[in-house]
Amino acid sequence: MKGLIGVLGGMGPAATADLFNKFIAFTKANCDQEHIPLIISSIPNIPDRTQALMHDGNSPLPLMQNYLHLLERAGAECIVIPCNTAHYWFSQLKESCHVELLSIIDSTMQEVVNSKKKNIGLLATNATVYMGLYQQKIEELGLNCLTPNKEEQQKVMKSIYLLKSGEIEKAENLMKEIADQLFKQGAEVIVLGCTEVPVILNKEIDKYKDKYIDSTSALVHAGINWYQKRQRN
Amino acid sequence: MKGLIGVLGGMGPAATADLFNKFIAFTKANCDQEHIPLIISSIPNIPDRTQALMHDGNSPLPLMQNYLHLLERAGAECIVIPCNTAHYWFSQLKESCHVELLSIIDSTMQEVVNSKKKNIGLLATNATVYMGLYQQKIEELGLNCLTPNKEEQQKVMKSIYLLKSGEIEKAENLMKEIADQLFKQGAEVIVLGCTEVPVILNKEIDKYKDKYIDSTSALVHAGINWYQKRQRN
Repeated sequence: MKGLIGVLGGMGPAATADLFNKFIAFTKANCDQEHIPLIISSIPNIPDRTQALMHDGNSPLPLMQNYLHLLERAGAECIVIPCNTAHYWFSQLKESCHVELLSIIDSTMQEVVNSKKKNIGLLATNATVYMGLYQQKIEELGLNCLTPNKEEQQKVMKSIYLLKSGEIEKAENLMKEIADQLFKQGAEVIVLGCTEVPVILNKEIDKYKDKYIDSTSALVHAGINWYQKRQRN
Repeated sequence: MKGLIGVLGGMGPAATADLFNKFIAFTKANCDQEHIPLIISSIPNIPDRTQALMHDGNSPLPLMQNYLHLLERAGAECIVIPCNTAHYWFSQLKESCHVELLSIIDSTMQEVVNSKKKNIGLLATNATVYMGLYQQKIEELGLNCLTPNKEEQQKVMKSIYLLKSGEIEKAENLMKEIADQLFKQGAEVIVLGCTEVPVILNKEIDKYKDKYIDSTSALVHAGINWYQKRQRN
């Protein structure tokens, strides 16, 4: 299947479903057959990424590589990973990958540049923040990156784990509090740098589209662009 | 991966995403790792099922078999197909399938039996209605099956194609009109016998859960049951 996109998902399942929903919503199609072909691995036994990086948990890399190769064998010509924290291992994944691998960080940063804002808030996992996956790139552009303080960051993490256990409303209240805090501190726009966060702040993003840069949406846009180019080759 | 469930989807993509969302919502999980492992094929170039059955269009069977085997090779131990009309070819698919294949029709009929209602409405594609995929089984149970008249059935089909082309609101208004009509004719409960219909009537089902039997939900429940049994073996 020309242009088949593989989704290395399950980190977590709700974020993977959100990416799938967005592929459908963002594609202009008049019938089933005009939608983008996807093969989605939502096999969630991959060890927790934040646990691995912050608390010496098992590495998720071997299973991520397994499922990446499973997608390749199924015919994927391009692979996307709807998990920001997983991108800590991006270069190792890219090395073992025989097809195109799109980075959610680079796709999101492109939208940061397009926004022309200077003060960029960041809502992400402890590991993504601690490893500086976004801050470094934001600061390289001469922009200012605002992150929650230590106590607030614990609430962000708690909200993310609440969603993973199905407690959507509690997760939303907690995350909204920290988003408001970042805006008060001067953020003009907030990068949702964990793919669970757009699921948690779904209603809020619908209301105030310009206030957020959703990493899942950015990755979907990059995937659709890749697919359209591939059709012309 | 023990218990990996394959989803032969893309017929259409929105219905496949709805099934994925329901697998997540219906699974009691405290973390990513407790969710059900899925491998989802949403490759939508399979010829339209209704066109094939009603207007001599290309058969969808060869590509359905291809993607079924792709899921098997990826390690699926059980396969579900979130498309009712595709179940016209169920016996042929089952014959060429080397793992468990769950039927959406049988899963839905189980919920019809459980409902203990006697007058069963049906919203489905022209082909599913014409081929009698549900009516026969409903009548075998001594129950009464109410289907839309010819003109109303054309509106059901129009609504389904509207969803497939992204026109959700128009699709909803049209489908709600026909559902109301079936209730007026005496339906106590309506089988949503096309996986696009629960996407179209999403809000309505949320409000009046007992009035509808959603074939996608029925298939997800059957899939979760299969997975739980598999874990004990």
